[in-house]
Amino acid sequence: MNMENFTYQNPTKLVFGKDVVDQVGKESIHYGKKALILIGKGSVKSSGLYDRISTHLDAAGISYVTYEGIKSNPLYNNADEAVSLAKEFQAEMIIAVGGGSVIDSAKAVAMGYYVNHSVWDFYLHKTKPEKALPIIAVLTLAATGTEMNPFTVLQNNAEESKRGFGHELLYPKVSFLDPVLTFSVPQSYTSYGVADLIAHCLETFFGQGDAPLSDHTIASIIRLAIKYGKIVYNDPTDYDSRGNIMWLATNALNGTLALGKQNGDWACHAIEHSLSALFDIAHGAGLSIVFPAWMKYNQRYLQSRLAFLAKYVFDVNEENEALAAYEFIHKLEEFFTSIGTPIRLQEAQIDELQKDKIVDNLNRYKANGLHIKLDETAREKIVDLMYA
Amino acid sequence: MNMENFTYQNPTKLVFGKDVVDQVGKESIHYGKKALILIGKGSVKSSGLYDRISTHLDAAGISYVTYEGIKSNPLYNNADEAVSLAKEFQAEMIIAVGGGSVIDSAKAVAMGYYVNHSVWDFYLHKTKPEKALPIIAVLTLAATGTEMNPFTVLQNNAEESKRGFGHELLYPKVSFLDPVLTFSVPQSYTSYGVADLIAHCLETFFGQGDAPLSDHTIASIIRLAIKYGKIVYNDPTDYDSRGNIMWLATNALNGTLALGKQNGDWACHAIEHSLSALFDIAHGAGLSIVFPAWMKYNQRYLQSRLAFLAKYVFDVNEENEALAAYEFIHKLEEFFTSIGTPIRLQEAQIDELQKDKIVDNLNRYKANGLHIKLDETAREKIVDLMYA
Repeated sequence: MNMENFTYQNPTKLVFGKDVVDQVGKESIHYGKKALILIGKGSVKSSGLYDRISTHLDAAGISYVTYEGIKSNPLYNNADEAVSLAKEFQAEMIIAVGGGSVIDSAKAVAMGYYVNHSVWDFYLHKTKPEKALPIIAVLTLAATGTEMNPFTVLQNNAEESKRGFGHELLYPKVSFLDPVLTFSVPQSYTSYGVADLIAHCLETFFGQGDAPLSDHTIASIIRLAIKYGKIVYNDPTDYDSRGNIMWLATNALNGTLALGKQNGDWACHAIEHSLSALFDIAHGAGLSIVFPAWMKYNQRYLQSRLAFLAKYVFDVNEENEALAAYEFIHKLEEFFTSIGTPIRLQEAQIDELQKDKIVDNLNRYKANGLHIKLDETAREKIVDLMYA
Repeated sequence: MNMENFTYQNPTKLVFGKDVVDQVGKESIHYGKKALILIGKGSVKSSGLYDRISTHLDAAGISYVTYEGIKSNPLYNNADEAVSLAKEFQAEMIIAVGGGSVIDSAKAVAMGYYVNHSVWDFYLHKTKPEKALPIIAVLTLAATGTEMNPFTVLQNNAEESKRGFGHELLYPKVSFLDPVLTFSVPQSYTSYGVADLIAHCLETFFGQGDAPLSDHTIASIIRLAIKYGKIVYNDPTDYDSRGNIMWLATNALNGTLALGKQNGDWACHAIEHSLSALFDIAHGAGLSIVFPAWMKYNQRYLQSRLAFLAKYVFDVNEENEALAAYEFIHKLEEFFTSIGTPIRLQEAQIDELQKDKIVDNLNRYKANGLHIKLDETAREKIVDLMYA
């Protein structure tokens, strides 16, 4: 098979390294004089980061209002509230300070600013944006890659659903990646971020199409995520490891791994979104449970691909593809366990009584973008394997 | 050591795949209605590519004049002539159809359009551009990476020198990468292109600074360049291999491999530029001679880095670093020989009587951007090793 045709352009300006956040005023002034700052819970304030950014915005002559309270599984309602505040203030840009949930919400607000309906309509694919406010991102958690891509995922609690949306207007204009800002991320969320970035790699990898550079880069990213994920689990202020994890997460979903591929297989993200919507489980924690189960269920179909990963991620020297494939899954589970991310639902306090509810939810919100069959039987068996 | 701070933004839009050149009218119209087309020798015309592009420009309502005659070691004089033509025609964009030499010349013309002096002054670092015409590139040779970077290299025969220049205004706006257009590249130039892209990887790799993702990606690119370089040597119309080589060459020098590094070590390019200026040898052919010699001379200093490449490029399983390092150099030489690129000066018809002339030229045009010593002794010994 050949590489697929593609068009690629990624306009995001990345500013990476220690203390780069001090350039936020200088970079933001290109986009206007009035900003909506979007943040999550209070940690951005208690850490001093909020004051540090305010100081630089003040110095640049940028005025701002702040919307506080984006959840770690971000809700569309909060984005709608932030849109109202942005409109009232006549914001010219959104400055998102936080992890993926805050930046994803900023993307919703950036689109919502120019329309008179709930941002949720975008996620329902009822409409597309024609304009969006510029987004400046200050990343505080390495995980989703949203800092260099046009994607956003929000949650609707009433619907018990989580939905994604992508549009080229949603690339952040500038993203600041300072590894020091992730020193204070709790151990568990650090590990969930590592699981998330590995999942992004695998979801691209198991799509259709033959893109050899992508295959090898994916193996390298997973290999390094395992190496530095282990270090940072024990030493959360190791700059080198934090920096590497941050950079790997950006590369795992900035679009380059998909180049030359026909598609990805996003089944595991779809299954995880059901878990998050039902149980408010952290996204990365859900993924480290879903992925092993999904790979086991599809093991025969994925065998040669799994064997490739066994060789290039774990140096497994095993001629028999079936054995090598099993080795990959097993070693990945061992790694997840070693950094404290769950690999079974029970470990996330989701007992077997919830099984039917999960299967029902999966059946209601059929995932798309999949080429490997995820029919009713598959859904049930995969949920079984998440308990096994 | 840690990853270095960096800022990265690459504005080039890549359009990759079979028949993408048919989009040239549609993409170019965003930049104006009058173009200067820049081409090399007649092959772009005899192959029908020129007519194909003309047809699409006509259909888009874009008028054009054509400057023909860019050399494969491109001369600043030709760029100056093309600037005059572009000014006379009041061109609004440059459409470069060819390999690295044509695109590098287009970058010179794009800057030269707005000044009243020779483009060579930029390469002498006497001045910087404040504006540049937009550049559209249709790539016909996989090698230099200029299609997605801001660098250009031109030659001055009177000075017997070749000089580079880089500026953010010089990223092409759009680059078309159609692997089919490289089917007709002669076997020798195909191999020189492979040598060039491997050299770019190595020059980044041997720079200072610790960037693990870069290290692994470099090993992957070299590994795949060897795989597909061998196939395409024997089967020049194999789309898959042509496509992979093209994509690898772009990735080898689009800036991403340098992210997190302190610098590269461009000694070999500097030495090769002397060879090209003196003997009009093809750039890639010069590099496959220079690199083994330079690695041998610096082998003790580079030992652990060479051992890394031995492991990840050639699967060498050798604990002793010195032996592994030697294995890498040896296997790389074997590969170059297998695809017909020279590894000694004699193979390029440059006999030992030229030795003093080469050393003199190296001493006159001191290379910069180096962290590994390239003093007079080193220059002489490396030239010796190019004959050995």
